[in-house]
Amino acid sequence: MLKLGIIGTNWITEQFIQAALSTKKYQLTSVYSRTEEKAQQVATKYEAGEVFTSLADFFAQGSFDVVYIASPNSLHFEQAKAALEAGKNVIVEKPAFSNPTEMATITALLAKKPQLFLFEGARHVYEPNFQITKQAIQTLDQVQGATLVYMKYSSRYDQVLAGKTPNIFSPKFSGGSLQDLGVYVVYDAVSWFGVPDDVHYFANLLPTGVDGRGTAILTYPGFNVTLIFGKNATSYLPSEIYGLHETLVLAPNAADLAQVTRYQPDGKTVELGEPADENPMTHEAEAFYSMMTTQDHQMANSALKTSQAVNQVLFKLRQSAGIEFAADQGN
Amino acid sequence: MLKLGIIGTNWITEQFIQAALSTKKYQLTSVYSRTEEKAQQVATKYEAGEVFTSLADFFAQGSFDVVYIASPNSLHFEQAKAALEAGKNVIVEKPAFSNPTEMATITALLAKKPQLFLFEGARHVYEPNFQITKQAIQTLDQVQGATLVYMKYSSRYDQVLAGKTPNIFSPKFSGGSLQDLGVYVVYDAVSWFGVPDDVHYFANLLPTGVDGRGTAILTYPGFNVTLIFGKNATSYLPSEIYGLHETLVLAPNAADLAQVTRYQPDGKTVELGEPADENPMTHEAEAFYSMMTTQDHQMANSALKTSQAVNQVLFKLRQSAGIEFAADQGN
Repeated sequence: MLKLGIIGTNWITEQFIQAALSTKKYQLTSVYSRTEEKAQQVATKYEAGEVFTSLADFFAQGSFDVVYIASPNSLHFEQAKAALEAGKNVIVEKPAFSNPTEMATITALLAKKPQLFLFEGARHVYEPNFQITKQAIQTLDQVQGATLVYMKYSSRYDQVLAGKTPNIFSPKFSGGSLQDLGVYVVYDAVSWFGVPDDVHYFANLLPTGVDGRGTAILTYPGFNVTLIFGKNATSYLPSEIYGLHETLVLAPNAADLAQVTRYQPDGKTVELGEPADENPMTHEAEAFYSMMTTQDHQMANSALKTSQAVNQVLFKLRQSAGIEFAADQGN
Repeated sequence: MLKLGIIGTNWITEQFIQAALSTKKYQLTSVYSRTEEKAQQVATKYEAGEVFTSLADFFAQGSFDVVYIASPNSLHFEQAKAALEAGKNVIVEKPAFSNPTEMATITALLAKKPQLFLFEGARHVYEPNFQITKQAIQTLDQVQGATLVYMKYSSRYDQVLAGKTPNIFSPKFSGGSLQDLGVYVVYDAVSWFGVPDDVHYFANLLPTGVDGRGTAILTYPGFNVTLIFGKNATSYLPSEIYGLHETLVLAPNAADLAQVTRYQPDGKTVELGEPADENPMTHEAEAFYSMMTTQDHQMANSALKTSQAVNQVLFKLRQSAGIEFAADQGN
């Protein structure tokens, strides 16, 4: 049983707590929130004994083995760094860090603490249909490219229309649609096709300084991958990976792989996917537990290498579109 | 009743003959083919009285009012020019001409013969669901962009894989997937959103010198339109036009608009489209007849302006991808 600490009490943190507890391999021991009432509420709900309103105390006195971090993106870096320095394992929600400089600082710190683990919470990568898709791609006669889509209108965009800057659309908090939803399809592309030779991002730039939606082209030898993502419009398109004579269709989108369907040359279909879990974070919770308890640093390093590649691609895409974060200053 | 002449006897020419005859407003009078047997066969099948194996004789002696040209793309220009010079109206299959120089020569010739008509056979533009889509776009709260898809594997790509260069994949014949299928979605974009400010084409270039497939980005003020088309892979994606809170979904693709569905903010759908005709060329045949017989030069000029804009966009997209045609030499 691993002891889990959490920073913040937002909906995704609760979803992770529920996923972790459902595996019966984690217990929630420690809750940090700036607001004591909120911390106490979550602690009571999930039977955690420790409540903190000081982050320094949380790391110094918390009895947890691993912390799950799902704060605004720009805060991940300092919190993960503090956690590692306090000797804690880290699960940091995607996108893990704002830029390659932050990523390099963290990996250097990890190298000095080789017993610790740091995982990026790319939950879809750990779902069975992600690996099923990867294996199906290997069997295509010749990869001709892909169209990977994840675009959903966010009610918080209403605030942008009203002239405000919610965190998720703020460059101060490393926000924007590329970071929030694009990261899923960048993970897809890097995991399935490797690191692209070149990237271009055609972004819809918002008055807040980040992107509302866009189309990105990742260039590979012999084919391109088209990424379509956004938070100020909604797409109902599934995603596709093209062979010469066969096409894989991922539905409902490239982040929620409920169905993985192979379209044969004659148009007939074969369903390859497994039914998805109710809580999509269960598989990552299982995988992180397994790596930590079996000390599987090889698998963890492989995942970290993918995180680094995704971090690089996200940064290059931002550069392509001229999107700068407060976290980039001084880099 | 208009007298129709045809050049060549391929499947699309037969489809147009059938569409034209079904309107009961055309009769096929004149058939040209280099092969007398083929010409005679089509003439017999559709009760045409005149058969030619010389193109000069076809134009000089044929009794037709209007010629339908669906030869390889690179031949459209000389054949349309000869037709206009012979005082014939012209329906030329899309893409009408290989580049803006050819287009300018034709429009200059048309200006000298103001009684004649030249139409580009952009059949989907004349189908009711195309206008229904255009009107629906006007009612979106704010256009946020579009994803327009038309990608179907062509059996003639098998020849490319075998090291050959069929006309449709030859730069000598102004071939490639942009010209053959991309033209549909470029027509969509130009008709629905206007002339883009900028274009980028990420093409899969073939050893033959043209494109097998690709993704193009058309840049408009405040949004981009993503075009996905090709002939060496197959997509099952519908197409989409994004409003802020609503999305229009075009199925099965952006060229065959069988269904035009409005997705409301709550995810509920309203079908806007009309059932399509069995022969998709019937509506253009009707429209061309109407313009010619009512001498509606205003509508014809409006269509020609769209043809010119599409021709420009296709050329810029080719330049973006470095695709050159034999027809470009000396321009």
